[in-house]
Amino acid sequence: MSSPQTRVRRQPQRGRYGRNAVDAVLDSGRVAHVAFADGSYPVCVPMLYARVGNEVYIHGSSASRAMQLLGKGSPVCVTVTNIDGLVLARSVFEHSANYRSAILFGSFRPVDDAATKLAALEAFTEKLLPGRWTEVRHPSALELKATKVLALPIGEAAVKIRSGPPDDDDSPDALLDTWAGELPLVLRAGMPRPAPGLKAGIVLSSSVRDFLRRNERELEDT
Amino acid sequence: MSSPQTRVRRQPQRGRYGRNAVDAVLDSGRVAHVAFADGSYPVCVPMLYARVGNEVYIHGSSASRAMQLLGKGSPVCVTVTNIDGLVLARSVFEHSANYRSAILFGSFRPVDDAATKLAALEAFTEKLLPGRWTEVRHPSALELKATKVLALPIGEAAVKIRSGPPDDDDSPDALLDTWAGELPLVLRAGMPRPAPGLKAGIVLSSSVRDFLRRNERELEDT
Repeated sequence: MSSPQTRVRRQPQRGRYGRNAVDAVLDSGRVAHVAFADGSYPVCVPMLYARVGNEVYIHGSSASRAMQLLGKGSPVCVTVTNIDGLVLARSVFEHSANYRSAILFGSFRPVDDAATKLAALEAFTEKLLPGRWTEVRHPSALELKATKVLALPIGEAAVKIRSGPPDDDDSPDALLDTWAGELPLVLRAGMPRPAPGLKAGIVLSSSVRDFLRRNERELEDT
Repeated sequence: MSSPQTRVRRQPQRGRYGRNAVDAVLDSGRVAHVAFADGSYPVCVPMLYARVGNEVYIHGSSASRAMQLLGKGSPVCVTVTNIDGLVLARSVFEHSANYRSAILFGSFRPVDDAATKLAALEAFTEKLLPGRWTEVRHPSALELKATKVLALPIGEAAVKIRSGPPDDDDSPDALLDTWAGELPLVLRAGMPRPAPGLKAGIVLSSSVRDFLRRNERELEDT
């Protein structure tokens, strides 16, 4: 999986190459940045995504220019980055962020067969909010047609992770009178906001309640 | 600022073009995804950044291959994306995320003069944690030399924003017995973790205490 293109050249101690590490970053991320060339210009677009087995799926309108370009199989780079906290050192130089990122190279192929397309839409929905698929109306034939789904096989990939305290504990700077350490950052769910047109008497979906409970636990651990 | 390259083609109601909107997204983001071509392959790398006036700065090791390529002025796309919440509709089709993204096009120029370089490092530090610059040891001549700073003038740019409830309030789906609405997501700071080598008797920096206070208020508003 490692090659000259993806080998982490700077700070190789931050590089990880195992497929499990790639999957872990992909599965905990919320948004992918998809980079491709539009003529001779690079373009980098944020997109929702989901991993299913050995592939990363994205979706968009069948009429979208980016989706059409990507569907032709031009080379792409798909990057998912999770920020875990601020790294606060005694010197400006050693300040940093803790993060986990996965960078994938390859090219998308269109997913046209209805069953795989439906499975991909289930994966998007379940990634956005686990348990949601069984609570909502599934796509109609017309909606399926209006949605383009693309799949990127996970091949060439690199993971970079920085974690832990700043790197200046063993340096003369550690004698300075400056607080140093990590400030963890975690996504917290706020109060759910019902849609203005929500039918009377509808209670909060269990997918949302489960999400809030899991989020509460995650925050306690941070 | 709008051109065929940056005009938001799909869902034009999500496009905003004002420079203030660009600055607002850049100033509230934490990480930029920097896309460029390495030979004929697109590469998309997460980087810390800071905006100062009309420019976006990035920095990295002088020995970094990406920084060297970018310093030569090849075309780049720099994207900053903030996720604000989950959009939970009655149908799979209308599920989405609330977000604010800024996409910049152009090319970086190297920043070599010492004063501008130092100002950029101050901006990185203050963006990571406001108030931190005055608490920490400033860069030495050697550290300045080891750091490459690049500047991208803000010109060609597009902002996309999605906010508010799902779009199916006026559709027949609104009659379904499914909870629909938004689930806001906000970054929450956890408990600061002192570096293992922290000198005895050092109290938490006021920059960190101020950050925690601001974060607390932000969470109350969500």
